[in-house]
Amino acid sequence: MASSLEGEGVARRDVVRMNAAGQAVGRADLVVVEEPLEIRIDGETLAVTMRTPGQDVDLALGYLFAEGIISGADDVGAAVRCGRLGEEGFGNVLDVRSAGGHRIDPERVLEGARFAATTSSCGVCGRRSIEGLLARCSPLPKEGTLSPPIIVRAMARLPAVQPIFARTGGLHGAAVYDAQGELLALAEDVGRHNAVDKAIGSLLRSRVLRVAGSSARLALLVVSGRASFEIVQKAAAARIPCVASVSAPSSLAIDLADRVGVTLLGFVRDDHFNVYANAFRLDARASSAEAPPKLSVDP
Amino acid sequence: MASSLEGEGVARRDVVRMNAAGQAVGRADLVVVEEPLEIRIDGETLAVTMRTPGQDVDLALGYLFAEGIISGADDVGAAVRCGRLGEEGFGNVLDVRSAGGHRIDPERVLEGARFAATTSSCGVCGRRSIEGLLARCSPLPKEGTLSPPIIVRAMARLPAVQPIFARTGGLHGAAVYDAQGELLALAEDVGRHNAVDKAIGSLLRSRVLRVAGSSARLALLVVSGRASFEIVQKAAAARIPCVASVSAPSSLAIDLADRVGVTLLGFVRDDHFNVYANAFRLDARASSAEAPPKLSVDP
Repeated sequence: MASSLEGEGVARRDVVRMNAAGQAVGRADLVVVEEPLEIRIDGETLAVTMRTPGQDVDLALGYLFAEGIISGADDVGAAVRCGRLGEEGFGNVLDVRSAGGHRIDPERVLEGARFAATTSSCGVCGRRSIEGLLARCSPLPKEGTLSPPIIVRAMARLPAVQPIFARTGGLHGAAVYDAQGELLALAEDVGRHNAVDKAIGSLLRSRVLRVAGSSARLALLVVSGRASFEIVQKAAAARIPCVASVSAPSSLAIDLADRVGVTLLGFVRDDHFNVYANAFRLDARASSAEAPPKLSVDP
Repeated sequence: MASSLEGEGVARRDVVRMNAAGQAVGRADLVVVEEPLEIRIDGETLAVTMRTPGQDVDLALGYLFAEGIISGADDVGAAVRCGRLGEEGFGNVLDVRSAGGHRIDPERVLEGARFAATTSSCGVCGRRSIEGLLARCSPLPKEGTLSPPIIVRAMARLPAVQPIFARTGGLHGAAVYDAQGELLALAEDVGRHNAVDKAIGSLLRSRVLRVAGSSARLALLVVSGRASFEIVQKAAAARIPCVASVSAPSSLAIDLADRVGVTLLGFVRDDHFNVYANAFRLDARASSAEAPPKLSVDP
């Protein structure tokens, strides 16, 4: 077990490269770091997640925001690492402290986290999960347009702007762009959800994202993996009107996007993509003959 | 929001296929279903996870086993769906009931789940996560061999044996094989961890996997995504000596595999793969000239 660190988020390990005939050669390889992060609120443990170290404050802010526990960075007075420098595990415990005059209430944690404890009664279903989000997050206004070429370019750029992925091939990326295709936030993590939390958390920290209404620049969230319910939920909470995924969406992600007014794109590859919800935002003026896009279903 | 179900785990939704020029055509598409599952123990809610419906009992068994809450299927008397047929959300609440003379204790939940509540003190780190697993799960014996051609074939077969993936492209697969390459268990899910829980749960339910020592047939766990700490943890708990992933492992997955005696393979693609831990199990006799594999690291 080698352990010479190659920088935050990347570690070196020995590896044997082998083929089906059993021929092997040894070499050193760079792999993505996975370590637990414990998030505390005013000294009380709230959650532990496996994550790639780096942008930990953004991760905490984005997670707390997506879960409805904070309404913006102004709820937070400080985020402090516990323990002593050099101590084992230093950097893996982050205490998020309430701003003066405010108390962050962890009881505001919502349903939906994987295997989170819950008190919901019989009848749990996807519709209830959607209603739960809508209860605290109104649907996005039916406005704004997105240019297909900008979407395709934003996805194509994702691997190029992921510094750790380029070295390890081992982690997910999330990026937020404005309507002109300018990169506003970027994050990487072993976990898809963490990468999105980090990207949105950095927008909170820099105050690009404040409360509802002030985030008009945010146009597009691009994710390297699949689009699940939770990814759309995080976009909706941050008032990002479009989610583009390189892979497939789930049924519940589509249904939530439909209800909450998020334009959901999947299989964004090369110069094509699928639109699963709210296609009205897509600017199809460049289409040769058949604009606007037809929503009729082939038999 | 179309909702005509195309069978368990697959649903139909309208989609617009668009290119960068904005040209669009509408059609119907099949997508993977994501719905919440609430797991109860003797009527008390333990956890809610987003999953693809199907093999729900296996998912519950595999999850409870991996977390150390049950030691095998004999701890469980019955798994009963709550609610009434036709009621909204029916099928999404599963009550796992203790076998006669036994009480399943949910307090045995271990650390490591994403954002699970925890009481750990300052100093949380990867080493502690590994020690936590080793405290309840001894390292696997340093024995057994695996044939490289069987590993390569097992991975190549994975998409072919995934019925939902073939139709939606939208979910992860996990499969367990014996040392001769015979398929023992297979599962699909929107979540990587769920797919592994389902595959291992089916081995528990069929009693192929009982307590430690009786699982000698289990040789190889193949997963369609990356290899994280939790995937190796689940394999170690089920005493499966080898994990093969199509993508990259994390640093903590490698370190855990190293300590717990699991052979960890990554980037298993075409006829090559990388060995990140415990290469001794790989039968390199087929190698032309340079067997056994060298573990020396290139400068």
